[in-house]
Amino acid sequence: MHTAAPILLTPGPLTTSARTRQAMMVDWGSWDERFNQLTASLCEQLLAIINGASSHHCVPLQGSGTFAVEAAIGTLVPRDGKVLVLINGAYGKRVAKICEVLGRRFSTFETAEDQPTTAADVERLLKADPGITHVALIHCETSTGILNPLPEIAEVIARQGKRLIIDAMSSFGALPVDAQKVPFDALIAASGKCLEGVPGMGFVFARKASLAQAAGNAHSLAMDLQDQHAYMAKTGQWRFTPPTHVVAALHEALLQYHEEGGLPARHQRYANNCQTLLAGMATLGIRSFLPEAIQAPIIVTFHAPKDPRYQFKEFYERVKAKGFILYPGKLTQVETFRVGCIGHVTHVDMQAAVDAVAQVLQDMEVLDI
Amino acid sequence: MHTAAPILLTPGPLTTSARTRQAMMVDWGSWDERFNQLTASLCEQLLAIINGASSHHCVPLQGSGTFAVEAAIGTLVPRDGKVLVLINGAYGKRVAKICEVLGRRFSTFETAEDQPTTAADVERLLKADPGITHVALIHCETSTGILNPLPEIAEVIARQGKRLIIDAMSSFGALPVDAQKVPFDALIAASGKCLEGVPGMGFVFARKASLAQAAGNAHSLAMDLQDQHAYMAKTGQWRFTPPTHVVAALHEALLQYHEEGGLPARHQRYANNCQTLLAGMATLGIRSFLPEAIQAPIIVTFHAPKDPRYQFKEFYERVKAKGFILYPGKLTQVETFRVGCIGHVTHVDMQAAVDAVAQVLQDMEVLDI
Ligand SMILES: Cc1ncc(COP(=O)(O)O)c(C=O)c1O
Ligand SMILES: Cc1ncc(COP(=O)(O)O)c(C=O)c1O
Repeated sequence: MHTAAPILLTPGPLTTSARTRQAMMVDWGSWDERFNQLTASLCEQLLAIINGASSHHCVPLQGSGTFAVEAAIGTLVPRDGKVLVLINGAYGKRVAKICEVLGRRFSTFETAEDQPTTAADVERLLKADPGITHVALIHCETSTGILNPLPEIAEVIARQGKRLIIDAMSSFGALPVDAQKVPFDALIAASGKCLEGVPGMGFVFARKASLAQAAGNAHSLAMDLQDQHAYMAKTGQWRFTPPTHVVAALHEALLQYHEEGGLPARHQRYANNCQTLLAGMATLGIRSFLPEAIQAPIIVTFHAPKDPRYQFKEFYERVKAKGFILYPGKLTQVETFRVGCIGHVTHVDMQAAVDAVAQVLQDMEVLDI
Repeated sequence: MHTAAPILLTPGPLTTSARTRQAMMVDWGSWDERFNQLTASLCEQLLAIINGASSHHCVPLQGSGTFAVEAAIGTLVPRDGKVLVLINGAYGKRVAKICEVLGRRFSTFETAEDQPTTAADVERLLKADPGITHVALIHCETSTGILNPLPEIAEVIARQGKRLIIDAMSSFGALPVDAQKVPFDALIAASGKCLEGVPGMGFVFARKASLAQAAGNAHSLAMDLQDQHAYMAKTGQWRFTPPTHVVAALHEALLQYHEEGGLPARHQRYANNCQTLLAGMATLGIRSFLPEAIQAPIIVTFHAPKDPRYQFKEFYERVKAKGFILYPGKLTQVETFRVGCIGHVTHVDMQAAVDAVAQVLQDMEVLDI
């Protein structure tokens, strides 16, 4: 039995550094100038990651990532707009569901869960339906770990004069996106993912011109990003009580992000984590669900062993007892489990996780992989 | 200059105990059984505070308190319902704004900011408009600190066969409400108020029968309390990533709440804080805005000194340098400032705050109070 807190190999909440958590030991007044400075510094650092200061605003929002996705759609898609939702997993489906609940017209294009959407698909779909005003894309679809070809798709959308909304929840901060090269109206992420903060807030990079035209679009007071931004621009404060400790933790996490070397270093560490994981699991005979070419270094889906002695629940508990928390699969057709590569962990932790898995499979007498 | 972190005399975020903040030093897997148990224990303890386990569900929600208020209205008021919003301050106005943005029909009844709504008012209004289905009331209107007569109003509403939605954000946990005696459909509060957790989540006590009928009402996916509850009831998990550290802090804060003696003890401590504050400020000649009979022991609004040498900004900064963060006034007609009585503070802290105010007024040569 491992006694330290287990390492989370999950796609958020994930393992954070002690220094990040330590930043939560102070209570902040949400009206106080020092807290306003924290928020301003946060937004500035976030914008810098996508080179977006000249073209986009960073609008932070209370709540989980889904709140920020819903807020982006509700605020930036006019009531008479129409969204083409590109789907190859659960988070794409969620965007379609959001459009449905909000009463925004939408159509969907769904590929298999191991099939990236292509720019050619999008071009064809946009030409076939001139009524489409916005396209919604999941950058890294976390339900498998598949990477969709964002730059190519963004280019096609811009060429057709349409607008792009990117759910980059699980990729932002680790996979590069340059707002001056990849045209988009909104890119959405959250505190508790690749930036290695704690969960509790999301943020949307919204194109300045689009946000300025968005007053009155939103279906919600709390999730109106235009109003949230306008208030913050005027007062320096959040419109409603901010999750002060979460904000402070994210700010501290960003300082460490820069000290580590920013995006290239974060990307490299996660790529190493992913490589160690894939190579290690391969030696155990455990097959990954996606081919490497479309595998983002964020989370890996593995086929569950075929052996009837394998049961996810028992496997999970035994690996947890050795200090690692894995993640269940999210596919309906195939039995899988997932292992995250993100968080305050290195390839050494990933190798230790692989060793734990090897030991557990042996203890469970799982032979037929 | 005071060097320790200042004490927040604000109505949330407020001063928390070191033990509560310490609970955030661990990362939790949101899918893990131990975290599910934490959530279940949290909801159980919250329900016990209002004696609501038999009649109500506790539905936690990511985001600030306003998110929970909007979610309650959006989920529990049918699309063809009509809300009577009782207003005597900014938070009442916010509920009206929410109804407007959500497209729910509503009417408002506004009294002066030092005037509680009465049960007789509500009875008359309900009789005059049979189309009203729901009434929204702010228990303690934090913009002044005024207490509205909840039990009497609730009784009238129930007698007329209408439904009550209570924003008890700043009073829950300190002022008693018994769900078996005070009939309501929803009572809303948040983590970072009288329970002395950190901000980042709200919760709604929703009448079981009403919640069961609420499927399809909501205007939002993220803020659909019926869906949130149904998923949690089925899986033990939050629908979308929970603010794990905020949840853990609230759980720890609740343990301390019970150790202190639960609601009666919390109420008594805040009442003592309020008394010490009122008596102390009176000796300085600073007048409170509300008569004592309608003053909740949550936050006190004081008239600003008349002296032209008084400027809130400078006053605030000087009191802060002595270790206390005050709160600006929220009245448009009269110049005021506010001092919170809630948080992990005692009457000793309140006396020290009064002493700091006295010293600052002397230093600023503010003579005409
Ligand atoms: C791609 C993607 N979109 C949306 C979400 C939803 O975020 P949350 O669970 O914080 O609401 C996630 C969460 O993992 C995600 O990976
Ligand atoms: C009575 C009342 N309602 C609603 C709110 C809004 O809560 P939040 O700022 O967390 O959104 C507050 C906040 O102080 C409040 O006091």
